[in-house]
Order: sequence, then C-alpha cells, then structure tokens
Amino acid sequence: MIKTDILIIGAGPTGLFTVFEAGLLKLKCHLIDALPQTGGQCSEIYPKKPIYDIPAYPEILAGGLVDKLMEQIKPFEAGYTLGERAETLDKQEDGSFIVTTNKGTKHQAPVVVIAGGLGSFEPRKPQISNIVDFEDKGIAYIIKDPEVYRDKKVVIAGGGDSALDWAIFLADVASEVSLVHRRNEFRGALDSVEKASELAKLGKIKLYTKAEVKELHGTDKLNSVLIKSTEADVEDVLLEVDNFIPLFGLSPKLGPIGDWGLEIEKNAIKVNNAKDYQTNIPGVFAIGDVNTYPGKLKLILSGFHEAAVMCQFAYQIINPNKKFVMKYTTVGGVEGFDGSKKEAKKEVVQSIV
Amino acid sequence: MIKTDILIIGAGPTGLFTVFEAGLLKLKCHLIDALPQTGGQCSEIYPKKPIYDIPAYPEILAGGLVDKLMEQIKPFEAGYTLGERAETLDKQEDGSFIVTTNKGTKHQAPVVVIAGGLGSFEPRKPQISNIVDFEDKGIAYIIKDPEVYRDKKVVIAGGGDSALDWAIFLADVASEVSLVHRRNEFRGALDSVEKASELAKLGKIKLYTKAEVKELHGTDKLNSVLIKSTEADVEDVLLEVDNFIPLFGLSPKLGPIGDWGLEIEKNAIKVNNAKDYQTNIPGVFAIGDVNTYPGKLKLILSGFHEAAVMCQFAYQIINPNKKFVMKYTTVGGVEGFDGSKKEAKKEVVQSIV
Repeated sequence: MIKTDILIIGAGPTGLFTVFEAGLLKLKCHLIDALPQTGGQCSEIYPKKPIYDIPAYPEILAGGLVDKLMEQIKPFEAGYTLGERAETLDKQEDGSFIVTTNKGTKHQAPVVVIAGGLGSFEPRKPQISNIVDFEDKGIAYIIKDPEVYRDKKVVIAGGGDSALDWAIFLADVASEVSLVHRRNEFRGALDSVEKASELAKLGKIKLYTKAEVKELHGTDKLNSVLIKSTEADVEDVLLEVDNFIPLFGLSPKLGPIGDWGLEIEKNAIKVNNAKDYQTNIPGVFAIGDVNTYPGKLKLILSGFHEAAVMCQFAYQIINPNKKFVMKYTTVGGVEGFDGSKKEAKKEVVQSIV
Repeated sequence: MIKTDILIIGAGPTGLFTVFEAGLLKLKCHLIDALPQTGGQCSEIYPKKPIYDIPAYPEILAGGLVDKLMEQIKPFEAGYTLGERAETLDKQEDGSFIVTTNKGTKHQAPVVVIAGGLGSFEPRKPQISNIVDFEDKGIAYIIKDPEVYRDKKVVIAGGGDSALDWAIFLADVASEVSLVHRRNEFRGALDSVEKASELAKLGKIKLYTKAEVKELHGTDKLNSVLIKSTEADVEDVLLEVDNFIPLFGLSPKLGPIGDWGLEIEKNAIKVNNAKDYQTNIPGVFAIGDVNTYPGKLKLILSGFHEAAVMCQFAYQIINPNKKFVMKYTTVGGVEGFDGSKKEAKKEVVQSIV
C-alpha cells in the first residue's frame, strides 16, 4: 500500500504543479497516470508544439513546460505510479480513500485530487476482430521501451507524427521495420516526413501505402499480419512479424472515474469554484481541464490557480487543528523534502563607515 | 480623452497579463499606474529578489518576470498612463466609464479592471511640518529621472536599499551627495553596502549617521536643511542643498479607489469569484491582490487566472451580440495588433515515396 498526503490522479501540468503547492504546505504527494511518463497531453500529444499563453512565457514548447515543472517540483520528492490507470475509489472508515489501479496497485490518502485532464488517453484501435487476443503478445498501442523491439520484425500502422517518428527510430533498432498507411500521404513535421522518405529510399523502412493490416495470425503470440491494398489490382501481402504497433492516436475518455459517484456534467466533474474546487465527495477535489463550473476556461494557467487554492483546503482536511500561515516564497524561500533550500540572498546590516 | 476597450488600473503582473488575455479576444487595453514604470511592486520594491512559485519558473527575479510579461504582451500594443494615480470613476449614460487621474488625464472605456495590487504605493514621508511646501520644489520621494540631479547638491535620507543605491548612483551625477540615516547601520544588499562604504571613504558620499533631517529652509524653493544628530554631544549641521530626497520606503494605500462606491472588505475589493470577478458595480472588475473572496490567495498566479476569466466576461459586455470561440494558442497562434503572428509550425502532408 502506497501512502501519501495528497493522491493526485493525472500527472499533466496541473497535477505536477499541485506537488509544488502542496510541498510549500509540507504535504507529500503521489501521482498516478495511465501514460508511461509525466506531462499528460503536453508530453504525449504535442511535446514539440509551442504554447503562447503560459504567463511570462512568450513561447514555450509543451515538452519544455513539463521539464520546467519537473525541475520546480523536484525538491518535493513526489511518488509516481505511471502506466497504470486509476480504477476504483474506496472510502475508508477513517475518512481516507484507497485508489486501486488496473494493475492492482493500491494507494491510500486522506485527500484525492483528480487532475485528469480530458481523461485517460486510450489508444484508437484498428477494427480487427481478434486484436485483443494479441495485446501484450506482439501488439502494443504505445511504445514504452523501444529496446523491446531490438532485432525484431516490426510493423507500424499509421500516417501521423507518431507512426513516422517511431518508424524512423526503430529503423536503427529493429531488424525490419514496415510502415503501413491507408493513404499515400503522410501528415507530420517536415523533418519527420523527409527523414522517413530518405529511409524508405534506402530500404531501411519498408513502405505499404494505400494499404491496411486486416488480419492477425499466430497461436501463443503474433507471427504474421495480412496487409491488404485498398487498390483492386494490388495483391495482399502476408508478412511474417514479431510485433504490430498500430499508432492511430489517442482518444481521451473519462473512464472509470466516471463511475466513482462524482457529479458529472458534459464529461467533466462538477466542483465548487466559489470555494475550494471540491467535488460532491468531501475530500475529493478536481482541478484543471477535468473539472467544470460556471465560466470554466480549460487553460493550463487556470489549473495552476486551482491547484494552489485546493491545496490550502486539503491542508485543513489533513491538519484539522493547525493553522498554516502563508509566506511568500520571495520572503520564506522554498524548503525541499530532500533537504534543499532556496531563498533570496539575505540583506546585510552593517555600518558603512 | 484616451479611449480603449478595457481600462486597467494598475500595471503590475496581473494588469500586464490582462493585456495578453484581452488581446487574444481582440480587445485593446490601456493601463494607468501611479508608479513611473510598469511592474508594480515587482519593479519598485523587489526587482532583484527571486520568486519561486511562478508556475514553470523554478526561480525568476521579480524584475525578470516583468520583462517577460512585457515581451509577451508587446504584440497587443497597450497604452500607458504612468506616474499618475486614478482619482475618480464616473459612469456615463452610455454605460461606459470615465476615469480621471490626479493630473487630470481622462480615460474612457466600457470596462474598467482594477488590478491595483495592495493599492497605490505612497511614499512614507518624514515628520517635518513644512515638508509639503517644498514638494516638487526641491523635495521628491521617488526618483523618476536621475538627470534632474545633475550638478546639484543632493541630500538623501534613509538606511535601506533605495537610499544606498541612489546615493551610489547620484555620486557620479550630482555635484555633492549627502546620506543621512538615523542609525549607524545600513540594511541592504551586500554589494550596495560595500560600494557605498567605498564611496564614503573616497569622500564622494558625505555620511551623516545617527542623524535626521529636522528642518527645511527656503523661500520659493528648498535651499538648506538642518541635520540634527541623535547624540547629545554632536552639533547640528545646516547644509546648503538643492534637493532633499527622503527614501523611507513606500506604503500601499487603497487610496481614491476606496471612494468609488465599491464594496470593500479588509482593505480589498469584494468580487464574485464564483463567476467573473466583477465588483458590485457592473462593468467594473477587480483582479489580483486588490480583490477578496472566500479562499482568496494573494498569489501572482491567481491574478493571472482571474485575468483570463475576467476577459471572457468583459468580451460579452463589449460585444453583447457576438460569441467568441476560444482557440488554444497552440492551435490558433497569437495574432498581434502590430501585425505580428506567432504560430506553431504547420504540419506537412506529403507522400514519402
């Protein structure tokens, strides 16, 4: 059982910044995220895209924003359960909550904060009847560790940045990389399109365009795929493979959180924005894009504000009889749980004669 | 008459970021501030101090934060009335407001946003009965343009950073610089204390410690000050001077805004935080440290959020029959009023064979 003060569901920008605000109040955090890394959409969907409306950043790449937040929260030593989806929420007699993931990992905390963004990002799966039979047996929808594919025969499907970038990357890792796309045109960053084109010419990526993977074969595990052309006069190809990786993008789903008894409106969790961003379940807060209230703006900067306010009220739940006097970081500095201390240079008081 | 869409009172971080959020909605802003430069407290009180709780900035100097905000809002070409204090608010028949400063400058806008921080910073004045007679006639409490003091005989009073830094600076500008402080010890950055000490030894700053300016003399303008020691056995000094600059710090006062008919609680303006941060006067909003509501945190990041939310509602007041569809800056980019355009690199769509 992992125990913490504030259990944060969702490790996107809002969830990450919560660690900082909680840390200033001496509260420890643990984060759960279905994605294999922190940063949420910023890391998974658009790491190389610029954001222009983060206050005091005229321009910052989404991936850079995550890096900065990770640096900022480092002193507060958060725990992480990544690549697992929060499945159930169970209220305990002592008022605390136990959250269990799809892999059975259990977490206990007096306060749960849902910072789940648009929900957990579920991969879009191709329509092949027996695809679930081969999941984790040759088929994956997200690449967590590219080393898994060393010296393997890999088929990637898709026509966007992910498919291009991973085909390029795995060209040097796998023994054979095939890229299947149902159109002739790929959609991605100019660099990626050019690089993939070059590798295709060198024969390091085998291309099947205007084609789709339509059948999967194997007994214990995947051993071949049938590639069908969308054109009448092109013959089907039965390709011997170790791995099939359909990269058709991720689509956000509120998922199991929708069954926790929370008040939901338009696929978002209703909170009390006039006070503390608490949900209808006392002790459970929702902040960032996952919540809704009158006038809600789904902006990262609003998630940051909601995190700061929410932590003050979480403090009162966790320390019912203590009063916390807020000190500005400029005045009080930042004391990490790792023993680090940042603070403004002290003024000196001395005679100048 | 200066006309604009949103008139912002206070050019601190919150007021400045409002220009950006308004700009995304194609609304123009004009800012009024009693201080001679933008940035509010961050520029005037602690420009060289680090702030640690701006999201995604593990550390940023207050002055650096202002620089970044000024860069971010540059495309939206705000107007500025600096060094003037907003004095009166008059509602017009057409629903707009006219705000007049202490120097008589008039501004008209359909929406007024008070982002006044802790209020306008009023200098702490020494207790000398006839001091007001010499204001702007040899006496100033803020140094707006140091060139005013070229080849003049200047007396500075105070024992903190401002007094030290200006004494050091003016040592090269004025013909004579005297520094009067009622204690022997100065309180300031180590650099400043050391530098002032060096200049004092070289005779470039004349020091009067354990002493205070007690009398002011002159007819049309100041021509001498009487410096009295706090020690019994030291004689008074009558010093011939052109200028006397008491730098005893600034103290924030809500000031004339307090008489505008706004609901005030604990020296702050009550707003509707459940919706739009509007005050009891429709069309007048209050954001940042100047407002109050249940659970209010006086954090810069909260001012940023409040600015973003407030601008959405200001848009509805200014364009009652239009609906604005929010586009993420990552998707829609940022189009400046100056013709500039920032946007994410477009994806290319092309065949790779």
